[in-house]
Amino acid sequence: MSTIIDVARLAGVSITTVSNVLNGRADRMKKDTLSRVERAMAELGFQPNRAARQLKTGQAELFGLLVPSLANPSYGMLAREIEAAARATYGYRVIVANTYRDPEQERAFLDDLWSHGARGAIVVSSLADERHFEEPIARGMVVVSYDSHAKRGALPILDYVSVDNAAAADLATEHLIALGHRTIAFVTPSGWTFSRAAKRQGFLDAAAKHGVETVIIEGATASIYSDAEMAELGQALAGEIIQHPAKPTAAVTINDMMAIGLIAGLREAGLAAPDDMSVVGFDALTLGAYIAPALTTIRTPLTAMAQTMVNRIVTRLEVPGTPLGEFRFAPELLIRGSTSAAPRDHGAAQARVQQQI
Amino acid sequence: MSTIIDVARLAGVSITTVSNVLNGRADRMKKDTLSRVERAMAELGFQPNRAARQLKTGQAELFGLLVPSLANPSYGMLAREIEAAARATYGYRVIVANTYRDPEQERAFLDDLWSHGARGAIVVSSLADERHFEEPIARGMVVVSYDSHAKRGALPILDYVSVDNAAAADLATEHLIALGHRTIAFVTPSGWTFSRAAKRQGFLDAAAKHGVETVIIEGATASIYSDAEMAELGQALAGEIIQHPAKPTAAVTINDMMAIGLIAGLREAGLAAPDDMSVVGFDALTLGAYIAPALTTIRTPLTAMAQTMVNRIVTRLEVPGTPLGEFRFAPELLIRGSTSAAPRDHGAAQARVQQQI
Repeated sequence: MSTIIDVARLAGVSITTVSNVLNGRADRMKKDTLSRVERAMAELGFQPNRAARQLKTGQAELFGLLVPSLANPSYGMLAREIEAAARATYGYRVIVANTYRDPEQERAFLDDLWSHGARGAIVVSSLADERHFEEPIARGMVVVSYDSHAKRGALPILDYVSVDNAAAADLATEHLIALGHRTIAFVTPSGWTFSRAAKRQGFLDAAAKHGVETVIIEGATASIYSDAEMAELGQALAGEIIQHPAKPTAAVTINDMMAIGLIAGLREAGLAAPDDMSVVGFDALTLGAYIAPALTTIRTPLTAMAQTMVNRIVTRLEVPGTPLGEFRFAPELLIRGSTSAAPRDHGAAQARVQQQI
Repeated sequence: MSTIIDVARLAGVSITTVSNVLNGRADRMKKDTLSRVERAMAELGFQPNRAARQLKTGQAELFGLLVPSLANPSYGMLAREIEAAARATYGYRVIVANTYRDPEQERAFLDDLWSHGARGAIVVSSLADERHFEEPIARGMVVVSYDSHAKRGALPILDYVSVDNAAAADLATEHLIALGHRTIAFVTPSGWTFSRAAKRQGFLDAAAKHGVETVIIEGATASIYSDAEMAELGQALAGEIIQHPAKPTAAVTINDMMAIGLIAGLREAGLAAPDDMSVVGFDALTLGAYIAPALTTIRTPLTAMAQTMVNRIVTRLEVPGTPLGEFRFAPELLIRGSTSAAPRDHGAAQARVQQQI
């Protein structure tokens, strides 16, 4: 493939001259020079290369998408929506990286994006610590954060787009309370990302409002390599819920993978959802509708959130000075088979759960 | 951000001179010129930009990954493995696109990759028609095809990396035959991609070897937007299997999503897997291990296949003239809860299935 340098050589002109032709600055050029450049391009089959045009603006029609792992189907769904919106609305393409919520890998990806001429990134990280984004942003990187929010008192340096996680947990908890549950567990991996902390707060607030007893069940995952750890952890935590002295009859879980793992763990202990324990997930994974019991879960407006993130990246890249914003979307509760009315005789139901240990 | 042009202007040299410094061709340069360029770079905080270096080779440390949809978790898992291998082994980054098995979108993506300086692509398409790849390949694009294979008699123009799909279907079918099933269905979307055709052939060959009766159940999906259609189709096809006059007692399905949909459809008709019908999936999705019944499925060596695809792309980009190859990997059967022995009294079991209609 021929480059701008090959064209300059063949036409006997400087690279700047070729660059001027490519960038529509040929108005003051001699006709002869312009036609020499055009002939050289035709002869070499030269295609105006974005990498060359990028020399002018220092910017490619590319942005980065940083996710913990595409092996997690909720990030796969999100990545699909973001890529589709970028292409359909702006003709932008997307460089993707799995960064496992590791600040070093996240930072390395932003640096690589820069050197590839990409000046924007959507970061799906929700690490509470965002200091590793500061230097790339100071250099001129446009960053939109998914599922996180601005720290109180700090001047925001990026856009925030998220679902209202507290409202989501409120919906799930109110649903369980309306079904008659009086002791409810919140099941989560250790490590308080922004979204987990917001979900926990929404859960605790809803429970407090109704005087319902709460239990926090948490455990560490071995790694965050993929989604398997979430299901494994849910499965492992089933034992803790069953044995908990407060005898919860329902659980709000951090995501669908964990909910499905929890239900598998209950099943291994001889217990069934929802008869022995109601379980609510979060994410509305496709498969959740087809399994037994079908998962009651929270659906987030992924398509609208993806479009907003893409709009923010491209607008801020193309209109410098665009003010930063925080965009929060409303969640929706999908009621399916994994939740049901609390047993009328709580004592008996709890005893049945305890018996199984 | 400053560009090579800014450096040339500040140093009072040509862009070619700056380019020579960047590409290590400063040996015959005057000391004064070199130090002017270096001072200009330092003053501007210029970072050697890959887009600029790319002008020399016309090639960025980027390649493309084209998948039908990242919303399908099997492609999400594959994308994760490919991105991780590219980065860990070669420091390459990956531009990704969802192309929905649409030749026009696939072709447009290859063109965009070229204009972004990417000269390689892994294509997960398995469309039988590959003519839309011919022109980009003739231009110099290095393409590796996943889950497809060379046409007999045609000169290959790309590498092929796949699991042995016929062997996979053979494993699934032999497993069901060993369990005593004598009439087995093959459940698939319409449209014979390479991999579907190979699976069907493996199924038919294994059945023929044992004199087992076969039924092909197929249906069209409304779209191939995401993975939901596969599960929906499986659910819809449950009725056809139940009503089929040959009364199959087991099903080999094209993938896990379809298997899970099929089991959901059976459940809605009052039937259970595996008691009323054994079901085998394909892909080994993480969730398949946690649902009830846990899915008997085929696991493919994704990590090894991803590494091979990445090795092929980078080797062929960096060592022109590397011969093309076809790489086929062995599948593995995971036996779990969705398959069991065929009922001893076939007639009674079939009658029970028929009764439910």
